[in-house]
Amino acid sequence: MRNFSFKNPTKLIFGKGSIAQLSKEISKDTRIMITFGGGSVKLNGVYNQVINALSKHTLIEFWGIEPNPTYETLMKAVAIARSHSIDFLLAVGGGSVIDGTKFIAAAIPYSNDPWDFVLDDSKIEKTIPLAAVLTLPATGSEMNGGAVISKESTKEKYAFHHPTVYPKFSILDPETCYSLPDYQIIAGISDTFVHIIEQYLTEAGQSMVMDRFAEGLLLTLIELAPRLMKNHQGYDDMANFMLTATMGLNGFIGMGVKQDWATHMIGHEITALSRLTHGYSLAIVLPALMQVMRKEKKSKLLQYAERVWNITDTNPDTKINTAITKTNEFFRSLGIKTTLSENHIGDEVIHEIVKRFKQRKTILGENKSVTPEKVLDILNLCK
Amino acid sequence: MRNFSFKNPTKLIFGKGSIAQLSKEISKDTRIMITFGGGSVKLNGVYNQVINALSKHTLIEFWGIEPNPTYETLMKAVAIARSHSIDFLLAVGGGSVIDGTKFIAAAIPYSNDPWDFVLDDSKIEKTIPLAAVLTLPATGSEMNGGAVISKESTKEKYAFHHPTVYPKFSILDPETCYSLPDYQIIAGISDTFVHIIEQYLTEAGQSMVMDRFAEGLLLTLIELAPRLMKNHQGYDDMANFMLTATMGLNGFIGMGVKQDWATHMIGHEITALSRLTHGYSLAIVLPALMQVMRKEKKSKLLQYAERVWNITDTNPDTKINTAITKTNEFFRSLGIKTTLSENHIGDEVIHEIVKRFKQRKTILGENKSVTPEKVLDILNLCK
Repeated sequence: MRNFSFKNPTKLIFGKGSIAQLSKEISKDTRIMITFGGGSVKLNGVYNQVINALSKHTLIEFWGIEPNPTYETLMKAVAIARSHSIDFLLAVGGGSVIDGTKFIAAAIPYSNDPWDFVLDDSKIEKTIPLAAVLTLPATGSEMNGGAVISKESTKEKYAFHHPTVYPKFSILDPETCYSLPDYQIIAGISDTFVHIIEQYLTEAGQSMVMDRFAEGLLLTLIELAPRLMKNHQGYDDMANFMLTATMGLNGFIGMGVKQDWATHMIGHEITALSRLTHGYSLAIVLPALMQVMRKEKKSKLLQYAERVWNITDTNPDTKINTAITKTNEFFRSLGIKTTLSENHIGDEVIHEIVKRFKQRKTILGENKSVTPEKVLDILNLCK
Repeated sequence: MRNFSFKNPTKLIFGKGSIAQLSKEISKDTRIMITFGGGSVKLNGVYNQVINALSKHTLIEFWGIEPNPTYETLMKAVAIARSHSIDFLLAVGGGSVIDGTKFIAAAIPYSNDPWDFVLDDSKIEKTIPLAAVLTLPATGSEMNGGAVISKESTKEKYAFHHPTVYPKFSILDPETCYSLPDYQIIAGISDTFVHIIEQYLTEAGQSMVMDRFAEGLLLTLIELAPRLMKNHQGYDDMANFMLTATMGLNGFIGMGVKQDWATHMIGHEITALSRLTHGYSLAIVLPALMQVMRKEKKSKLLQYAERVWNITDTNPDTKINTAITKTNEFFRSLGIKTTLSENHIGDEVIHEIVKRFKQRKTILGENKSVTPEKVLDILNLCK
């Protein structure tokens, strides 16, 4: 096991009716900016629950943080927050709203152009405290210190991480997810699945505990997915899905193990260039990456085949083939089109991605072996 | 899933050579009291590593926190800490040293008799900050807000919990455990096993995620135990054991689920009355409790049989019987004598325990159904 340091200070407040606890969790003498996405929270009652809970607090609202939140939109929120001397941010929405709010929180006290710290997060010095009311299980942003921000003007998308941007608390009420459209449930399942895989599917024998935790989350997701696809209003299923998504990217399965993240890095570029939803882009890349990297990942692919898919075949190559097929079938069972062509994404996107990685000298993967040439192999397999 | 709130602020610093990080983690301007047990840390090099790391800090040492730490011993430390204006406590040792240090930390600023807050932890107001260097995987105290304290004069033993007694950080270096005697490794494995079971073996269908996490820890422990019994100096095995013990009682497997803790409550009384080591007393009680409570726990005992012991028998009663036998055999494979008589504990202890529970009107278990009469049934089965 590798040496590691783990700390996750976020308080998780979970369950039916828990939005009402907001008033206890935020001090009355703060000036709050509440950040929102496109407005679905006004239709499903979440907005009213939040506003009622904070009826005695001083607050302003900022609307319009988009999926794949952009620097351009977020900088408007930064200007408003500065002019109102905001000292607490409450994100109400999914991962994009929370990610965007982390950027705003770090940008408010930042003296230079905040895009600087997206490119180099060591430049973050302090952060306005933030918290979240999560309405879409997917990114894990509600209980971690990371955020992904896009720049519209240059079609770039990068992640930054900092210990000061963990939410102080996050409220997760599964009932807030009942009204989610299929499309977002699907993206959330796919995103969660790949978050777990990125931390798990490297090399066997890193950590028995982390392996069991990750496999447990994958098994849970595979069991839940068909039920969630049929019905979004089963409380326990939605609760288990929310918890799986949070546990999938809050550090609980990442202690002392190698991590990959190549699928995410390639997926981010696909999204940046084609606007394909994040969770959908990952489902295209992952099976192809497993295929191209199968030698290096052999020991873990075999364990994955056995423990996650219960494949008992004795031939290792067959076992791995079946595991990759099962993975692809899992995404397709959600209704995701797992090829680039089905999503009308052509060779020009492939070539642009490879060109960018070459220019940036980007080499990906847990062993820094996924060169731009390997990325080309992977993307060609995605056609 | 039940509503829950989870927060664990402890920073876990894990791995080879990590004691050297002490100097970075504790501010130079604090006055530290380091608390120790019986002196094994002087033989295995841990003491020197700690003192070297803190060579530029102001510190005093307190030695002699015993297994099942007593109020009487700890109050001596409180008096010394007060007279030296100590403002940081560093526990170096196993769960008893850490538990005792949590008591000291809460007792220093407490104005009345600190035994009060052992009996009613809501009386704790503030706490001196504390941290730990763990040298014995077992209790999980290094990453939770609980402590178990004994009172020698009355032969009582109680647990208290408070959010202010979580260690600020805990350092876990598996190499510090290489010199542990078999006896303590065995007690640690047993204690860890039962911590997980107390949070898991209640009723099926509470939380898919928590079930998978708990089962994963049990499977890890069952796989590790025979290897640890043969060899205490395998780095990865010891690292996995340490991590399992920490994860077993840091809240990670307890979110939104019913919890039992009857085995612990009965075991504490056995230890208080007979001085039998904590981990050993639990191994006596657990199989008998499973037997007596088998109807109420049926759904979860069946899941435990299938997922943890891989028992495929189709008859539910046979399945449960086999799971209980396997549990008992697991403890016996560690060399634990799993009956009271083998440990020279007679009927007078049984009767005293039942008398105490009757006097205190104690009713145990996840459904508050383990009456003193049921405890008598359980203890009679332990003979």
